[in-house]
Amino acid sequence: MEGKFITLEGIEGSGKSTSLETISKKLTEEKIDFVVTKEPGGGPLGPPLRNLLLNKDANISPQVELLLMMADRKNHLEEIILPNIKKGIWVVSDRYLDSTYAYQGGGRLLDISQIDKISKILDLKDPDLTILFDISPEVSLERAKKRSDLDRFESEPIDFHKRIRETYLTLAERYNSRFAIVNSSLGFEEVELEVNKVIDNFIK
Amino acid sequence: MEGKFITLEGIEGSGKSTSLETISKKLTEEKIDFVVTKEPGGGPLGPPLRNLLLNKDANISPQVELLLMMADRKNHLEEIILPNIKKGIWVVSDRYLDSTYAYQGGGRLLDISQIDKISKILDLKDPDLTILFDISPEVSLERAKKRSDLDRFESEPIDFHKRIRETYLTLAERYNSRFAIVNSSLGFEEVELEVNKVIDNFIK
Repeated sequence: MEGKFITLEGIEGSGKSTSLETISKKLTEEKIDFVVTKEPGGGPLGPPLRNLLLNKDANISPQVELLLMMADRKNHLEEIILPNIKKGIWVVSDRYLDSTYAYQGGGRLLDISQIDKISKILDLKDPDLTILFDISPEVSLERAKKRSDLDRFESEPIDFHKRIRETYLTLAERYNSRFAIVNSSLGFEEVELEVNKVIDNFIK
Repeated sequence: MEGKFITLEGIEGSGKSTSLETISKKLTEEKIDFVVTKEPGGGPLGPPLRNLLLNKDANISPQVELLLMMADRKNHLEEIILPNIKKGIWVVSDRYLDSTYAYQGGGRLLDISQIDKISKILDLKDPDLTILFDISPEVSLERAKKRSDLDRFESEPIDFHKRIRETYLTLAERYNSRFAIVNSSLGFEEVELEVNKVIDNFIK
């Protein structure tokens, strides 16, 4: 049987990384074989591309960013996601295609139909489950700042992050069969409880 | 007045680089301000992308290659080609969009409509003049081999290069108003003469 494909989405500082640990613990308890990966940069082409994409000094237009993100994603899909799933191994990815709609579409105001067209050409697989970590940017950026210096995305103004959050919520409504929303402004234990419940429901 | 945009196309070892010198000499004599550039890798994003694209060990599928080439091209266009042209400076580029049709379409047998769609989304500028250096791959690859170790493209089998040549000739027929074909199997002096004639006609 094929492995399942789970993606985590949310704005910067929404607690995806922390919850990745919760999910890993949970899947291990359930004796499910899985790998954890991320975008951008989870595939073999990833490290040089990730450096390029997160570099604050690079002069990258929204369309160039879109193409690079898509190249990284297709490579990640072909080399990491699909081979694991075919072997029956679950794949948990920190970000995937919804990030492009949220960041390049919502954040950079790039025409959504351009993203639609390119993802259709690339025949990108849909996730089986997408967990959206929802939080207001005011709260989450404070968290991100405490953690480390801000990268090219984190340094964008607050409206950029608000548009991303809105886009995520719209995606979650449109694709409600695969989306689960976790309220990330809750405390650590409550978020952990929520995430475990989402995974439980999904396994059933 | 806007500068003109000239592109050089042809298979590996077709003598583009040698003729770039001829063209540079000619434009200098004509007192035309110009810059010389290249693809992939002529833009600010170029050097890391070029390394990635020409690396023989990278596992890059035709679609991923297409996206990376297009990202590189759009960045090159925005940052180098258009700003120069707008200042009235001519731009001479060693390869441009026709290379993608020839290499990813003809060579890698990627569906041409995918290239059409992506280049339409990106609103890529057409060259004013494209010089195609035409030669049989049997002859040109011998030249390339003598010059240095073969890269990821040069190491492809002969049929790959034959398909590229055929695609170039088809493009030259379809867009005959901007294409000029130079027979690259001739000796250096004859090719130089031909190239000078093409530039002369273009300036008139």
